[in-house]
Amino acid sequence: MNTLNVPLGTRSYQIHIGSGALTQPELFSVHLQKGAVCIITDDRVGPLYLAKLEQALAAFEPRSVAVPNGERHKNWRTLDMVFRFLLKNGFGRDATLVALGGGVIGDLTGFGAACYQRGIAYLQVPTTLLAQVDAAIGGKTAINHVYGKNMIGAFHQPRAVVVDPGTLVTLEPRELSSGLAEVIKYGLIADEDLFLWLEGHVQELLDRDLPALNHAINRCCEIKAAVVAEDEQEQGRRALLNLGHTFGHAIERALGYGEWLHGEAVAAGIAMAAEVSVRMDWLKPAEYRRICRLVERAGLPNRPPAAVTPGQFLEYMQRDKKVRQGRQRLVLPKGIGQAVVSDDFDADALADTLTHKPL
Amino acid sequence: MNTLNVPLGTRSYQIHIGSGALTQPELFSVHLQKGAVCIITDDRVGPLYLAKLEQALAAFEPRSVAVPNGERHKNWRTLDMVFRFLLKNGFGRDATLVALGGGVIGDLTGFGAACYQRGIAYLQVPTTLLAQVDAAIGGKTAINHVYGKNMIGAFHQPRAVVVDPGTLVTLEPRELSSGLAEVIKYGLIADEDLFLWLEGHVQELLDRDLPALNHAINRCCEIKAAVVAEDEQEQGRRALLNLGHTFGHAIERALGYGEWLHGEAVAAGIAMAAEVSVRMDWLKPAEYRRICRLVERAGLPNRPPAAVTPGQFLEYMQRDKKVRQGRQRLVLPKGIGQAVVSDDFDADALADTLTHKPL
Repeated sequence: MNTLNVPLGTRSYQIHIGSGALTQPELFSVHLQKGAVCIITDDRVGPLYLAKLEQALAAFEPRSVAVPNGERHKNWRTLDMVFRFLLKNGFGRDATLVALGGGVIGDLTGFGAACYQRGIAYLQVPTTLLAQVDAAIGGKTAINHVYGKNMIGAFHQPRAVVVDPGTLVTLEPRELSSGLAEVIKYGLIADEDLFLWLEGHVQELLDRDLPALNHAINRCCEIKAAVVAEDEQEQGRRALLNLGHTFGHAIERALGYGEWLHGEAVAAGIAMAAEVSVRMDWLKPAEYRRICRLVERAGLPNRPPAAVTPGQFLEYMQRDKKVRQGRQRLVLPKGIGQAVVSDDFDADALADTLTHKPL
Repeated sequence: MNTLNVPLGTRSYQIHIGSGALTQPELFSVHLQKGAVCIITDDRVGPLYLAKLEQALAAFEPRSVAVPNGERHKNWRTLDMVFRFLLKNGFGRDATLVALGGGVIGDLTGFGAACYQRGIAYLQVPTTLLAQVDAAIGGKTAINHVYGKNMIGAFHQPRAVVVDPGTLVTLEPRELSSGLAEVIKYGLIADEDLFLWLEGHVQELLDRDLPALNHAINRCCEIKAAVVAEDEQEQGRRALLNLGHTFGHAIERALGYGEWLHGEAVAAGIAMAAEVSVRMDWLKPAEYRRICRLVERAGLPNRPPAAVTPGQFLEYMQRDKKVRQGRQRLVLPKGIGQAVVSDDFDADALADTLTHKPL
């Protein structure tokens, strides 16, 4: 078992990472309040891991709610199911929610905890690679709005994150690949060594080799913890974690949430951001090809769906939360292991990328 | 023009109080961001004051949204109207919302600002006495849930509060009295002198005498600012501001939101809390009679509606956000000018109060 710290003053918390973590009561008990506990999960993860978690939390007599699985349910309607359960069953301000599932469950539960009675405690127990390396850490919570992804949300840090890589054995292949998109992202924005390691070990990750998964998860959590500690509310550096996401959110929005998985859309978005960088000479063509190749080997798309038009991209990208005074801002790689947030990019480079003009 | 400060570190802000404040551009401009401005108001206040405020904000080219007036619209459906407007019109994270209206508009706008793109700035421009002395200050924001009042919300401080007592000339008499319930509350929990002053000046307030209103508003804002500065997140002393509210929320819930105004329900709740205190010898019968008399002279009910049963009170009071580990907590006066938050009250004193047993 490895424990990392997210240093945020009074909001600091620990990330416990280790196979079998899900069944260790002491990892949870130290982080729980005196009040009642409610596990929030979905109808895919619940049948697999809810009983185990309930056993680990038995001393707290947890209740549980299972909502429908999937990104298209990350909305007010689903959140209100949770609120109704909590209110009907008398959960008070001293209650703790426990998010058992992927990024959707973590985001939904975290935002629910942020708003319920003006804010209660919650723990993250991520069961997908994407949530284990990214979504569960850092306190960004949200639901989708019909007019934009993650548009309604809050910064609300969990009391702890308990990561059990053992849960990845049951993860669907598409979901596993989706998580790898975020792992590749960390390499690109902050850690050339991680990117190199990925080029050598991506197949082991796809084969669910536990030591390889452990290495990737630990490294990504370290990077995320450091970035969040430096810029909790995304005033600056934290925006780098959005590499590929401005394009990716537009893809998700255009196709309908859930059509492409979040990581699939982000993967295509990473390749598109890299393409913009190449057109501006911020990235070498050889580096761009390495990125596209790694994305492909991870089982991910390295180009956008043909169905999404340049006009849709431009419209939906303008809804991005990074837009300031109407100006589009993009996260763009500068070589491998480094990236910038910029509103000073070449508009033609973006237009040529969206219209698939040959490089 | 008087300016008070709410000292909350990086979240500190000013309260500007003065007749005509609504038309003074400089009171707003110093608190606005570079981004777009959207005024949120309702269909009762809008026709009276929106044009004036738009003029004061003209340099920022504000847009505006008017939602239906009244407590029964303080819900997700109304909030979503605001979100749709903001998203359709491309409001970004650098936007500022301006709440123009009573407590409902302030609470709804504040919660909207807390969640929109994970948090944007907002200003409070309260136009009812209740909002000017209480709701607009302190950053408590919320919407109602069908299972309980103010159950979904956030602590999110405004960037400034601009109070124009001149707006009270158009306030309906019932609304003016409703605000007086909160003024009486401040006297009871924190300031015997204010209570004594109210006994001598309540008629002037009902007659909308501006110097009297100014005095009451300034004193209440001073008390609220001090309490909030000491306990922003209501871990302790701030709960005293809920005197009368546990009973009051149960009344509002039982009758249906909007049937009794919030201040009317709080007034009856204050009298009920005082009655519990009398039964426990925490308050002298003569003090209780002074409280009931002042409430009545303010045009407010000093007993609960006959239609609300003791069972309804007990059920809805259990949903109170002050409940801890299932234990009811009440704010109870101890003499005039002092109150406590206690879970160690005499259950019979509460039961006798709910069943109208003679004192």
